[in-house]
Amino acid sequence: MKTVTFTRAMQTRIYRLPLTAAPRSFCSVPVRMQPRRPQQVLVKENGLQVAWSPSHSSFFHREWLHRNRPGAISSSGQNMQESRSEAPERIRSAAFNGERMTVEVVWEGEAVASEYPVKMLQEQDCSSGALKERSMQRKSTPLMERNGGTVPRISYDRVMTSEDGVFEWMDHIMQDGLCIVQDTPCHEEGEVTKLARRIGNVMDTIYGEIWDVRLEHDPINIAYTSLGLDLHQDLAYYESPPGLQLLHCMRFDDGILGGDSTFADAIQAAELLRKSDKEAFDTLVRVPATFQKIHYARASPVHLKYQRPHIVLNHDEEVVAVFWAPAFEGPLQVPEGQVQRYFDAYKKFAHLVEDEANGLKISFRLKQGETVVFNNRRMLHGRTSFKPSGTESATRHLQGCYLSIESFVSRYNCLLHERSCRSENAYVPRDV
Amino acid sequence: MKTVTFTRAMQTRIYRLPLTAAPRSFCSVPVRMQPRRPQQVLVKENGLQVAWSPSHSSFFHREWLHRNRPGAISSSGQNMQESRSEAPERIRSAAFNGERMTVEVVWEGEAVASEYPVKMLQEQDCSSGALKERSMQRKSTPLMERNGGTVPRISYDRVMTSEDGVFEWMDHIMQDGLCIVQDTPCHEEGEVTKLARRIGNVMDTIYGEIWDVRLEHDPINIAYTSLGLDLHQDLAYYESPPGLQLLHCMRFDDGILGGDSTFADAIQAAELLRKSDKEAFDTLVRVPATFQKIHYARASPVHLKYQRPHIVLNHDEEVVAVFWAPAFEGPLQVPEGQVQRYFDAYKKFAHLVEDEANGLKISFRLKQGETVVFNNRRMLHGRTSFKPSGTESATRHLQGCYLSIESFVSRYNCLLHERSCRSENAYVPRDV
Repeated sequence: MKTVTFTRAMQTRIYRLPLTAAPRSFCSVPVRMQPRRPQQVLVKENGLQVAWSPSHSSFFHREWLHRNRPGAISSSGQNMQESRSEAPERIRSAAFNGERMTVEVVWEGEAVASEYPVKMLQEQDCSSGALKERSMQRKSTPLMERNGGTVPRISYDRVMTSEDGVFEWMDHIMQDGLCIVQDTPCHEEGEVTKLARRIGNVMDTIYGEIWDVRLEHDPINIAYTSLGLDLHQDLAYYESPPGLQLLHCMRFDDGILGGDSTFADAIQAAELLRKSDKEAFDTLVRVPATFQKIHYARASPVHLKYQRPHIVLNHDEEVVAVFWAPAFEGPLQVPEGQVQRYFDAYKKFAHLVEDEANGLKISFRLKQGETVVFNNRRMLHGRTSFKPSGTESATRHLQGCYLSIESFVSRYNCLLHERSCRSENAYVPRDV
Repeated sequence: MKTVTFTRAMQTRIYRLPLTAAPRSFCSVPVRMQPRRPQQVLVKENGLQVAWSPSHSSFFHREWLHRNRPGAISSSGQNMQESRSEAPERIRSAAFNGERMTVEVVWEGEAVASEYPVKMLQEQDCSSGALKERSMQRKSTPLMERNGGTVPRISYDRVMTSEDGVFEWMDHIMQDGLCIVQDTPCHEEGEVTKLARRIGNVMDTIYGEIWDVRLEHDPINIAYTSLGLDLHQDLAYYESPPGLQLLHCMRFDDGILGGDSTFADAIQAAELLRKSDKEAFDTLVRVPATFQKIHYARASPVHLKYQRPHIVLNHDEEVVAVFWAPAFEGPLQVPEGQVQRYFDAYKKFAHLVEDEANGLKISFRLKQGETVVFNNRRMLHGRTSFKPSGTESATRHLQGCYLSIESFVSRYNCLLHERSCRSENAYVPRDV
């Protein structure tokens, strides 16, 4: 076999990941900060130093302040062209206004002063201490460690009739990755989309807006069989896979053996792999898998492919995303020298999530009327195979739909904002 | 100002980008390969060596072959659980079948042999030579260099009445980044979505499925004013911003002064920056900008934020994506030591795309009945400010909608596949 020089070159080349301070991508929990008063505001050569305590100061760059001055932002939240105008060379003076809880900045050569809410400055604090603290706080705690594996529950009525119910529901999903909605009506089809619309518009995918998981004659997806399904995410071949998945159990007869739902926290799994096998972990961070759905013989033909590593890190080496979908992996397309180590690492991760002994997997039998709603980025899901026992007519029928990550995150952030306004500075919410 | 140790630590830490062989993300052009016959097929210790010419061989790993054997894939294109079964320790024999144009592999200890189409092996060739060649071939050529800035055109009827028309249309967009559809009817609203549906379902966003670009009293977007718009992409704060944007010029009275459409190739701009100012380029690759839309006082409140660098590279340092949306940048949230260099680099890129002298910008006045359709990932777009001259009633009215990157790519790949089947091995298409 010839020497693969291409691969070697890549192994020795040195890269830097983007310096992103990005949170766990859609797998983080919101952070609430206690509001603070600045102890001192000092004009420095190129900006403003705000001291929150003797050991904690943050620095706001002159250009940053000028771009983000309230007057440069439109009523619809967009930056006006003025925001890109050259910042004055100097800040003339700055002062904290304790009554209005703002910091006022007077610019050299500009008639209009700028007033920044302290809350905003606190939220935008990018001192090393603040970045570290937030990074710690936003780490989600695996369900197994928080609730001993007990899946949180809420009633259908509570979600459908109050905004507080929606917030409570979404907060469960944010914290634990999933939540069961009890007593979802089963007499009509489409209830699952009514539930979804409490959050936002249903996401349209190659499976339509709503889909049925039950035995089909000529299935366009192996979920529409009675086979078991390994733990996986849906639509990992989309650039932006669904944020939430809702599965409404319309019917699940006692006569069906098996068909239990399974879940595992993918972020937790990745962290475990890092501890138990750093080499395998590094491989899954570096070698891109191929996710694909290629199926021409269906009403609406599909040919989608997306190459991405299974595990994604941010600059601080935190796991910010995991992509895992064994049934939808296309042929690996990487330099030849990477193939063996990829498969070795792949099998280790698969074993880690699937083997009951590792304690990552939770499983339960959905009951008719229950809707399990989960974060498709964080929680892998699957099921055990099933078959009717005796009675031929026994049925298992789930109806499902998706919400985009944008619908999920935007609605949650808006609810968080409302609650923060209502409680008058009780906390400063960090959006997710 | 205190020492920012956090930043220093990050600057010295060494990272490696994923070893992705990923193409220019949705900005690449499709590659057509001439079909080849293997000259030799050799069983090696851990796989198969296929020699295409005396100087070009590719190696297929035993596990790779076993996972991707045709029998392990369902009729709907999914990997069956069998695909993950342990591969036999050895390949017993392998041979090229010239009549069937396949390579047959006999496994040690498995009764069923596996037959791989040569076309598939050629497409999956990951030898260093093949990877390099494809990387070269898929680079798009900027419109200015290919067509001297002439925007390709197609008639509405051709797109609406034939599949070949759709392919031709999409191929223009693939190659040049944009295309004008002529003679789009203007007597009814919603024509733009009819056009879009020739490709796929319209993408639902926070602006709905269809939106009007015209003067509004209380605009939810500054596009709905008469202000000029700097070159930008739409919805850069989405994890997956729209793939295609369609803008149908419903009405554009002669009495309107200004309102010209502007476009620039973002990939070309990034490459130019790399040449002219490597430090600025590196900064835009490493420091994540904040893209956001936060607007509570609208029918459907929005709070979305996404941090990402402006320029994204793959392992081979090719530019695979650019994100640019000056009006939708939220406060930069990066370590304090990065702020100054970010703004310096930012202004250089902004100047590069906006300054006419750099020759990146094309501009033209849309005519009533024209629909400009463009790749929102590759082509930045904007407009000059406008105002009525004399007559108060002069109007400029565009109607627009989006298609997701998945709709665009999937439909194009399917059309490519059909054409490749029809022409019987005339070429092996590489999907995009």
